[in-house]
Amino acid sequence: MTGPVVILVDPQLGENIGMVARAMLNLSLTDLRLVRPRDGWPNDSAVAAAAGADVVLENAQLFERTEDAVRDLNLLYATTARPRDMTKTVVTPEEAGRTMRKRMAKGDTAGFLFGPEAMGLANDDVALADAVLTVPLNPEFSSLNLAQAVFVAAYAWFCGVAEMPEKTLSMPKDTGPASKDELLHLFEHLEGELDRSGFLRVQEKRPTMVRNLRNLLGRAELTRQEVQTLRGVISSLTLHRDKMPN
Amino acid sequence: MTGPVVILVDPQLGENIGMVARAMLNLSLTDLRLVRPRDGWPNDSAVAAAAGADVVLENAQLFERTEDAVRDLNLLYATTARPRDMTKTVVTPEEAGRTMRKRMAKGDTAGFLFGPEAMGLANDDVALADAVLTVPLNPEFSSLNLAQAVFVAAYAWFCGVAEMPEKTLSMPKDTGPASKDELLHLFEHLEGELDRSGFLRVQEKRPTMVRNLRNLLGRAELTRQEVQTLRGVISSLTLHRDKMPN
Repeated sequence: MTGPVVILVDPQLGENIGMVARAMLNLSLTDLRLVRPRDGWPNDSAVAAAAGADVVLENAQLFERTEDAVRDLNLLYATTARPRDMTKTVVTPEEAGRTMRKRMAKGDTAGFLFGPEAMGLANDDVALADAVLTVPLNPEFSSLNLAQAVFVAAYAWFCGVAEMPEKTLSMPKDTGPASKDELLHLFEHLEGELDRSGFLRVQEKRPTMVRNLRNLLGRAELTRQEVQTLRGVISSLTLHRDKMPN
Repeated sequence: MTGPVVILVDPQLGENIGMVARAMLNLSLTDLRLVRPRDGWPNDSAVAAAAGADVVLENAQLFERTEDAVRDLNLLYATTARPRDMTKTVVTPEEAGRTMRKRMAKGDTAGFLFGPEAMGLANDDVALADAVLTVPLNPEFSSLNLAQAVFVAAYAWFCGVAEMPEKTLSMPKDTGPASKDELLHLFEHLEGELDRSGFLRVQEKRPTMVRNLRNLLGRAELTRQEVQTLRGVISSLTLHRDKMPN
């Protein structure tokens, strides 16, 4: 088992089980367990809604009792609204994801428990869990689609494992970031033309204006290709200038 | 406008637009804009799938061109896969949420742009955006349901605004956390009984065992009610001891 298990208790529509399978595979989760699916199993609507995540449905395990579906797990989160009549630790998906990563790195097994659509988990099922996982939502409209709930509960776990950097630059394969030399040639080209056009004629303001222009273009993280494009733009803009009437 | 705008370009199924409305209202977003919805507007399937988020559908605005749908925004994220043939900053939902909160706090307006189901945004639409927002996903199964994409793109923004603490304790209204005094009485009750039973009879080990028990019970963050319950458990366990044969 590589990721946490997803356990659906009393799921109703096959379509929702299929959408859960799709959401799971989006996050590399493949261990689905179903406790008393209302419309039986296997289910054609589930396959149609899974949009290709068939492997998750094919390997799904069936259980009659929630207890039996969670027996092999060391860490279990009940994904539901804040319980009103039980004393229970309540965590966000971020906190649950962090704890799961730590515990699973030590060899523990973990899972998320979900109740039927439009209803929370029964108190007896919540009591099986180590903590309640509650997704922060608009308090005036907090009914979440089942697949949405599965996705957001597990997404923080997945992001922590994937460790994707928060900001990167995507670019075509046949170019790369411009060198400082290429940038300086661009700057000098532009500034030379602005000197000729009179834009930089006030000498005491020139250093500030040049610095502002360079900063502005520097922030764009230009590629080599884009530098060539901009030089073409400058050349094109100035080509006929001397012939134009002012 | 209180939250970011959601713009769907060429959405196909009304059902998906309805599910997007539901996901939006879950996160307190109400400003939906539709560019050329395939099946016309208004749409009955959208209403059925919105599960009560009618206010979002009723206020949705229609546009013929993406440019016109984004014209009033200062900050726009194109939510799509990493572009292969354009140079563009790529951010995660977390980074986008952080930037949006900062910019919107200064009075800027912001939005998320989404392409049609099963297809990414057209390059011309991506070019309108300040950056590409890409959700980290299983690279081998990365096709995300449209409502799921809207939810996860905006969720990080919402969490930052809601500032929900990552871990809290939920408890019934008629109780509260136990005082240290109540805990000490519980500890002393338990230790007294364990002294009588002989469990703590090895004097040099007693301090360590008592400390371990106190730590263990302390970690549970017991309520007053639970302390009473545990004291009842101890009393009950020891009630008939003296009458039992050993």
